Amino acid sequence: MALIVCKFGGTSVASPERIQMVAKRLIARKQAGHDVVAVVSAMGKTTDELVGLAAALNDNPPAREMDRLLSTGEQVSMTLLAMAIEARGYKAMSFTGRQAGIETDGTHAKAKIVKVHNERIMEAVNKGMIAVVAGFQGIDANGDITTLGRGGSDTTAVAVAWGLNADVCEIYSDVDGVYSADPRVAPRARKLDQVSYEDMLELSGSGAGVLQMRAVEFARKWNVVIHSRSAFSDAEGTYIKEEPDMEEAVITGIAHDTSEIKFTIRGVPDMTGVAAKVFSALAGNMVSVDMIIQNTSESGTTDISFTCPGADEKRARETLERIMGDIQAREYVVDEDIAKVSMVGTGMKSSPGVAAKAFQTLGENKINILAISTSPIRLSVVVDSAQTNAAVRCLHTAFGLDSDSVFEEKQLSAEEVAAKMNKGR
Amino acid sequence: MALIVCKFGGTSVASPERIQMVAKRLIARKQAGHDVVAVVSAMGKTTDELVGLAAALNDNPPAREMDRLLSTGEQVSMTLLAMAIEARGYKAMSFTGRQAGIETDGTHAKAKIVKVHNERIMEAVNKGMIAVVAGFQGIDANGDITTLGRGGSDTTAVAVAWGLNADVCEIYSDVDGVYSADPRVAPRARKLDQVSYEDMLELSGSGAGVLQMRAVEFARKWNVVIHSRSAFSDAEGTYIKEEPDMEEAVITGIAHDTSEIKFTIRGVPDMTGVAAKVFSALAGNMVSVDMIIQNTSESGTTDISFTCPGADEKRARETLERIMGDIQAREYVVDEDIAKVSMVGTGMKSSPGVAAKAFQTLGENKINILAISTSPIRLSVVVDSAQTNAAVRCLHTAFGLDSDSVFEEKQLSAEEVAAKMNKGR
Repeated sequence: MALIVCKFGGTSVASPERIQMVAKRLIARKQAGHDVVAVVSAMGKTTDELVGLAAALNDNPPAREMDRLLSTGEQVSMTLLAMAIEARGYKAMSFTGRQAGIETDGTHAKAKIVKVHNERIMEAVNKGMIAVVAGFQGIDANGDITTLGRGGSDTTAVAVAWGLNADVCEIYSDVDGVYSADPRVAPRARKLDQVSYEDMLELSGSGAGVLQMRAVEFARKWNVVIHSRSAFSDAEGTYIKEEPDMEEAVITGIAHDTSEIKFTIRGVPDMTGVAAKVFSALAGNMVSVDMIIQNTSESGTTDISFTCPGADEKRARETLERIMGDIQAREYVVDEDIAKVSMVGTGMKSSPGVAAKAFQTLGENKINILAISTSPIRLSVVVDSAQTNAAVRCLHTAFGLDSDSVFEEKQLSAEEVAAKMNKGR
Repeated sequence: MALIVCKFGGTSVASPERIQMVAKRLIARKQAGHDVVAVVSAMGKTTDELVGLAAALNDNPPAREMDRLLSTGEQVSMTLLAMAIEARGYKAMSFTGRQAGIETDGTHAKAKIVKVHNERIMEAVNKGMIAVVAGFQGIDANGDITTLGRGGSDTTAVAVAWGLNADVCEIYSDVDGVYSADPRVAPRARKLDQVSYEDMLELSGSGAGVLQMRAVEFARKWNVVIHSRSAFSDAEGTYIKEEPDMEEAVITGIAHDTSEIKFTIRGVPDMTGVAAKVFSALAGNMVSVDMIIQNTSESGTTDISFTCPGADEKRARETLERIMGDIQAREYVVDEDIAKVSMVGTGMKSSPGVAAKAFQTLGENKINILAISTSPIRLSVVVDSAQTNAAVRCLHTAFGLDSDSVFEEKQLSAEEVAAKMNKGR
C-alpha cells in the first residue's frame, strides 16, 4: 500500500479510447491497494492546435492570454479522465493547477513552481477518490493562470508527488524506460533498471527525450523517486533515484541530439572582452548557447564557434549581424548538419581515460570530431550529422554497453497499439 | 460616450477570421468613444464537441466535471479575441466567469446568477482596455465552476451590463433584430424598432429564437436595455426595453414553434386529483409541460392533452407508462406533427376580440385548431405542423403587421457572408 502519482502524456489521452485505457490502468493501481493521484497532459495535438489558433490572430500574443488559452487543454483531458473513472464505478475528482494548489512565479509560459498546497488533493484521496490533476499549469500571486513550459506536466507530477510525500512518481510514456542509447540508433541498447538523478540530467540534456530535465532537476532537489515506464505494459521500467542499488558502470548511456546547429565566427581579433561581448549579446537575445569552442589564435585573429538549438537560429543570426562590426570579425558561417553525441556516467568521475578511449574509438571508425565539451560526468563530441548513428554504435560497443538481444524497430499499427494496451491491463 | 456590453455568439467567433471581424467591430465601438466590454460564447460547435467527448466516456457524467469541461470553450474564445484586439494595437484583457465576479448558486449545468462583482472589469475598462468576458459560466460558493445552461452567454451579457450599470447590452447575431414574424415563413414580416420586455418574453417563449428568455427575464428584472442587432452590419436592430417610445400595436408579433409534441391521454376517469397526479409525475420526471387541455367529459371519462418539448418525449413516455395503471386511463397517443402559433402583444390587454378575430381568420383559411392556450398578452393555438406557414401568414396579414417590402430568403455563401461582414465595418 503506497501513495503513487501517475503521469500520462498527451499521446496516452489522445482519444476517448485511450482515456478509457488510462482509467483502467489507474483503477488497477487502486485495486492493488494504492492511493492514486493522476497527472495528465492535454489530449494529443491540442496544445499545438491552440498555439496555431493564437498565431493566426497575433504574431506575439500577450503572455497572460496565451497561458490562459493553453491551460484549457489539460482542463479538458482531466475532466474527461475523471468522467471515465466514474463511469467504471470508482470515485474521481479533477483539479486545475489552481485547485491543486500549485503556486508559481509570474513568468508566463515558463513559470517556476514556488509552492505546492495539496490539502484539497489529500482530502479527495482520503475519501477514496482518484484525484486527477491538470499538468503544465499553476497560478501566480495575482491569481492568473501560468504555464510551466512545454513538457511541464512531468514537472507537475514530480511537484505533486513531493507535495503529497508520495512513494513514487510514475511517468508513463510510449517507451518502457531509459535506455543506454536510443535503440532505434543502437539496436543493442539496454534498458536500465536504475539511473541516478545526475546521469539522468546529463542524458536528458544531451538528447535522450524520455523525461523533462526540469522534472528530473526538481526530483533531485526534493528527492522524489521517478519511475519511467511504459503506458502499454505492466513491466517495470527505469527508476530514477539518488543512490542506485548497484555499482555503477563507468558510462551509463550514450545520448545524441541532432537539433543543434553550429555557428563559427571567423577572424575575430584576439583581444580580451570579445567573447564576453558575443555571448552576452546572444544571451540578451534569448539564444540558448550550449557548447563554446574557441580555436587557437593565429596571426592576431581567432575563430569562435558555438552550438545552439536550431530553433534559435533566427535570433542568433540577428544578434551576430548586429555585433559583427563592433567586434570587428570577418564573417560568420552556420553549419546545420551536426549532431552532438554524449557519453554520460557518474562513474566517469573515478575513471580517467574515458576521453582518450572515446577519441580513439571514433578515430578508428573514421568519424571526425568537430568540437568537444565536457563536464565531470559527461563527454560530448560534435560530429557530422550523417555519422550520428555510427558514432553512437561504436561508442556503445566500446564502453561495454551492448546487450545480448537486438532491438527490433517497428512502427506499430493502431491495432497493435490497442493489443499492446489491452495486454498491459 | 457610453459604456456598452457587446455579446457575440458561437457563430461570430467560429474561426480566426470571424474573431478578427469581432475584434474590428469592438475597436470601432471603442474608436467611437465608448467604453467597451465584450462577452463571448465558445467557438462554433466547440460545446457540442466537448459534450460528444464526455458522452463517449460516461453516459451520465458527473455535473461538476461536465461544467468544468464545457467552461473551457469560452476560455479559448475569450483569450483568442483578446489576442486579436491586442494585435490591432488596442489593449484587451480576458476574464473567466470567476475573474468577472459572476457568482452563481451550485446548480451545475443550470446555475442561476446570484451576484455580480465587476471591480476587476471596471479596473480594466478604466485603464482604457477592452474587457473580454467568458459567457455561460460562473463560480459557486465552493469555488467550483458552474455553467448557466445552453445560451447562457446572453444571460452573462445582461448580468455584466447590469453589474457595470452599462448604458446598453448589445446582442449581436446573424439576424438584424426582432421581427413581427419569422421572415422565412412570413415574407412580409417587419423588423421591430422596439419591443417591451413582456412581449419579448412571450415571443421568445413561443419560438422566436433571437434572444434567450432567461436573458430577457434578467433584463426586465434589473431594467437592462438590450439591443438585438446584426453582427454583419451597422444598422440599428431592435431595442428591448421597459417602455417603448411609440404607441404599441395590439399585436407585436406572431411566433411559431415546431419543436413541441402533443400527448393525449384517453379515457381518464373524470375524478378530482387525476390531473394533479399526471402533472406532478411529469414534473417529477423533468418534463417541461407547456400547454394543458382537458376536453369535455363524456360518459364519466375524459381526455387530457398536453404539449412539451420534443426533447422530453422519452421521459414523458416513461412517466405515462408508469402511471397509466394508477390513473386507470385507457391509453395515450403522441402527435409529433404539431406547431404552436402564438400572437403576442401587450396591447391585447386593452383590445378585446383578438381571439375571435384569430379563430375567424384561421377558419377562413381552413386551418384546424387542435388546442388553445392564452395569457394576458398572448394567444397560442396548436395546428397541424403542415399548416404552420399558412397560419403565421394569414394571422400576420389579419392583424395588420405586413410590411410593404417582401423579405427575400437566401442562403448566403461563405463569400457573401465575408462581403457582408466587411461592409459592416
